[in-house]
Amino acid sequence: MARLTSRIHEVIVTTVDEAGNPHSAPMGISEVNGYFHVKPFKPSTTYNNLKRHRQCTINYIDDVRVFAGALTGRREWPTLPCSRIEGAYLAQALAHSELEMLRFDDDDPRACFYGEVVEEKIHAPFRGFNRAQSAVVEAAILVSRLGMLPEEKIREEINYLQIGIDKTAGARELEAWGWLMDKIKQAGIDIQHD
Amino acid sequence: MARLTSRIHEVIVTTVDEAGNPHSAPMGISEVNGYFHVKPFKPSTTYNNLKRHRQCTINYIDDVRVFAGALTGRREWPTLPCSRIEGAYLAQALAHSELEMLRFDDDDPRACFYGEVVEEKIHAPFRGFNRAQSAVVEAAILVSRLGMLPEEKIREEINYLQIGIDKTAGARELEAWGWLMDKIKQAGIDIQHD
Repeated sequence: MARLTSRIHEVIVTTVDEAGNPHSAPMGISEVNGYFHVKPFKPSTTYNNLKRHRQCTINYIDDVRVFAGALTGRREWPTLPCSRIEGAYLAQALAHSELEMLRFDDDDPRACFYGEVVEEKIHAPFRGFNRAQSAVVEAAILVSRLGMLPEEKIREEINYLQIGIDKTAGARELEAWGWLMDKIKQAGIDIQHD
Repeated sequence: MARLTSRIHEVIVTTVDEAGNPHSAPMGISEVNGYFHVKPFKPSTTYNNLKRHRQCTINYIDDVRVFAGALTGRREWPTLPCSRIEGAYLAQALAHSELEMLRFDDDDPRACFYGEVVEEKIHAPFRGFNRAQSAVVEAAILVSRLGMLPEEKIREEINYLQIGIDKTAGARELEAWGWLMDKIKQAGIDIQHD
């Protein structure tokens, strides 16, 4: 076990561009000694936005359509204005944190921005683990690596993840899963999908 | 896609026995038309407790040690008294619902209790998905079926789930994962576990 860092959470990071338009992207973030580490790839819209405007929102959200949508060209989700930063949070978020970036390491291929929480709001309760939501998150990670993984591995993992979808999904999870499966099929990978 | 029911959430259900002692057990529950369906196996402590005392707590909790602990003989977690029912909720819960059971179907092998929410409290924010937490939940389900699944399938799934553990676990997830791996090894299944 080489890794000694803290837990990584899959969240949606919302930044704003020069015109003030929000941009939301899935990201794995961690909290170390009270600071959030946000590590966007370079180049990326999140990186550009954060370098220009050192504030962002961490959205803690269980609507997995936002994760699957980011990988399949569906990025238009309703937002609401933040209270302590110039930014926005996703209307579906269960909770959100507003961050002020204190400094950043301009490393490659990912920069690391160190953020301090200046505001935090809870909007709705966590409802417990859902295996289908986890399956969508895992499938989204697979889809983000489509060109890099062997087809057989993708087929095997999708077959495994399909079990949690079949047993525990609600409407939102089925919709998100469908988007990801379409994307995999469009890449020419033959998966069964009913 | 044969299933048309709603999303199933993995939660901890807390009931009380005749002496007033709380009993907490992991369970997959669903909400249909505003009512929670709680389906304990028969026989089980949760079934006995609910049949006698028609109230329970749904704990929405991201501390996966409670899930892994229930399968490995670790059931002593701090609780706090409920406000609207005679019962308790887990001190680590991010949120909880207090339920009044309206009726139940005494089916086999699982009964189905239909519960109405009489109180709901949020204690802490959801912090986003964590792949290691999902891996522990999946491994806990595997461990609950140890005698029923082929060894090779268990080995394969654990190897797959180990990736999320290695990449994203914090201290709580590593502890829970260790308990489950010990249990699998005690069952004579040879898995690699560092």
